Amino acid sequence: MRIAVFAGDGIGPEVTEQAVRVLQALEIEGMELVEGDVGGAAYRRHGHPLPEATLDIARSADAILFGAVGDFSLDHLERALRPEQAVLGLRKELGLFANLRPATVFKGLEDLSTLRPEVSGKIDLLIVRELNGDVYFGEKGTRTLEDGRRQGWDMMSYAEDEVRRIAHAGFKAAQGRSGRLCSVDKANVLETSQLWRDVMIEVSKEYPDVELTHMYVDNAAMQLVKNPGAFDVIVTGNLFGDILSDQASMCVGSIGLLASASLAEGKFGLYEPIHGSAPDIAGKGLANPMATILSAAMLLRHSFGLEEQAARIEAAVAATLADGIKGGDLGGSAGTKEIGDAVLARL
Amino acid sequence: MRIAVFAGDGIGPEVTEQAVRVLQALEIEGMELVEGDVGGAAYRRHGHPLPEATLDIARSADAILFGAVGDFSLDHLERALRPEQAVLGLRKELGLFANLRPATVFKGLEDLSTLRPEVSGKIDLLIVRELNGDVYFGEKGTRTLEDGRRQGWDMMSYAEDEVRRIAHAGFKAAQGRSGRLCSVDKANVLETSQLWRDVMIEVSKEYPDVELTHMYVDNAAMQLVKNPGAFDVIVTGNLFGDILSDQASMCVGSIGLLASASLAEGKFGLYEPIHGSAPDIAGKGLANPMATILSAAMLLRHSFGLEEQAARIEAAVAATLADGIKGGDLGGSAGTKEIGDAVLARL
Ligand SMILES: CC(C)[C@H](C(=O)O)[C@@H](O)C(=O)O
Ligand SMILES: CC(C)[C@H](C(=O)O)[C@@H](O)C(=O)O
Repeated sequence: MRIAVFAGDGIGPEVTEQAVRVLQALEIEGMELVEGDVGGAAYRRHGHPLPEATLDIARSADAILFGAVGDFSLDHLERALRPEQAVLGLRKELGLFANLRPATVFKGLEDLSTLRPEVSGKIDLLIVRELNGDVYFGEKGTRTLEDGRRQGWDMMSYAEDEVRRIAHAGFKAAQGRSGRLCSVDKANVLETSQLWRDVMIEVSKEYPDVELTHMYVDNAAMQLVKNPGAFDVIVTGNLFGDILSDQASMCVGSIGLLASASLAEGKFGLYEPIHGSAPDIAGKGLANPMATILSAAMLLRHSFGLEEQAARIEAAVAATLADGIKGGDLGGSAGTKEIGDAVLARL
Repeated sequence: MRIAVFAGDGIGPEVTEQAVRVLQALEIEGMELVEGDVGGAAYRRHGHPLPEATLDIARSADAILFGAVGDFSLDHLERALRPEQAVLGLRKELGLFANLRPATVFKGLEDLSTLRPEVSGKIDLLIVRELNGDVYFGEKGTRTLEDGRRQGWDMMSYAEDEVRRIAHAGFKAAQGRSGRLCSVDKANVLETSQLWRDVMIEVSKEYPDVELTHMYVDNAAMQLVKNPGAFDVIVTGNLFGDILSDQASMCVGSIGLLASASLAEGKFGLYEPIHGSAPDIAGKGLANPMATILSAAMLLRHSFGLEEQAARIEAAVAATLADGIKGGDLGGSAGTKEIGDAVLARL
């Protein structure tokens, strides 16, 4: 049971530290934690945001607990060396093709959303985002056209097997929830989306118990404003998933509580809070570690089948919140370590 | 002063009819209206959603008043024959490269938004969306790879001149408003976006009075939830603009009031409500024609410089709303013609 811990940049190290304390407190037999450098921190130490040594640690592990990467002071670097490339590199190298992003409003925290409580209170959805294809990983470049104009270009594509495996992830997730799956695409404009839609319909034959619907991405962005409570599971491509999952997270109003999983075929996965590296508050002990602690719970559940321990962590976080111990992002005043202590005390 | 009137599908004809009545009531000298078929209606009559005859009318006109297109019962057609292709075809054939989508909350209507009134009440932004390039109009297709797998693909690209002309549109719009321009891209992943960003920065040198900022599209989708009032003018590409402008419109909560303009170089433009063809209420006299009436006002202002007449229409609509005459979409009970009559009476 080897867990790689990649803390990363900004508030990454401090929030990860608390999640590690929680994992250790569970005294799980055979659990081993191995740290590795990623992001801007790795660039500064090794000249690359995703050094070979880090990849080796990842490959030798059964799961990854990830903090956050991002460092504006490295924005001048060529794209391949910027901190975010660590995220893209890990996804591709480790075949992490299915990003699960639940967005659920915690009871009692409806008021943190900018949406009216009667709208936000109903949010309980899961976005299943494809992570290994689309315009993210196609050929790309800048060229000079014959007439001398510069042009930037990126190839968007999906092959049927890429769509099929994320379709299965979406249908299975829907089976475990309400049985409704909404596939989001832009099939009225994109051939990539038309193939996506065709394959979704093919795969749906294997899941007669799931109701499949289709929605254009622009309409999905509207419906997430109008009535996010109407969604259950959304399955979508890498680019649309990037946008819609961030939109949905913000609808919840408490981004400091949202965890996510990026899964490979089998049990391997990377788990991380959906918030970023928040350089403005980094190192001050102000960051809310709850999303990272909840990511550790997801890790135990998905990669190791430790449902009981996962539930214990989640209950401890819920109890901490119920006792009014909240980070600044939730309108409270508790610091990083204080929240870690409180969760540990309730474990 | 030749205005092409393309009513289209669903509620398109009934809302356009009221806008035409308003235009006629102004008794503008030399104004001539010419109708043409577009969308599903055109397909049924002529076998194509954008017949050559319609394009001829468009080319001979100085501006287009557009209703809506879309007809689910034609979804089985190959993409090139579906109603929406009329929109894409007009944009490309007429060089309508700049889509202006204002999203402003009308005073007294803050409560229609699903956002809290203190958030929605501050929304007053303009999205400037590029309409002639990006992944919309690149090469695309479905192919069978060497190993037999089907793949859908679409080429995303922007050339520097395409970015430059929409940049100027964005900077000029910002000059006419608060002097702040936010360019939205995904430069951390896309080469198309990196070129976009580089050109935005180049063009910004010509507008020292405008403050240019950059934001990733996923973050923009979040900020539109968290604090939409912080935005003034947003400039972005075709695909991101499609998604973000719909999201922003829905934040306003009264989509039946939002008009848009799609402008070519010079004064030519197409003006349309941002709502769709709403087949569920079509032909029942229930649709709110205000967005189309306000589109007619935009048309007079942008394409003909008739500021006074445009302002008269806008004041008449505002007075109608202030008198509590509202369509069902705004929580009222007034029908299409009743609203048209009320606006006419207040002109
Ligand atoms: C950092 C960036 C490349 C990444 C993405 O676009 O996938 C991020 O926004 C995310 O969603 O994890
Ligand atoms: C109908 C469709 C092709 C179109 C688009 O994607 O541009 C529409 O969504 C719009 O925004 O006008």
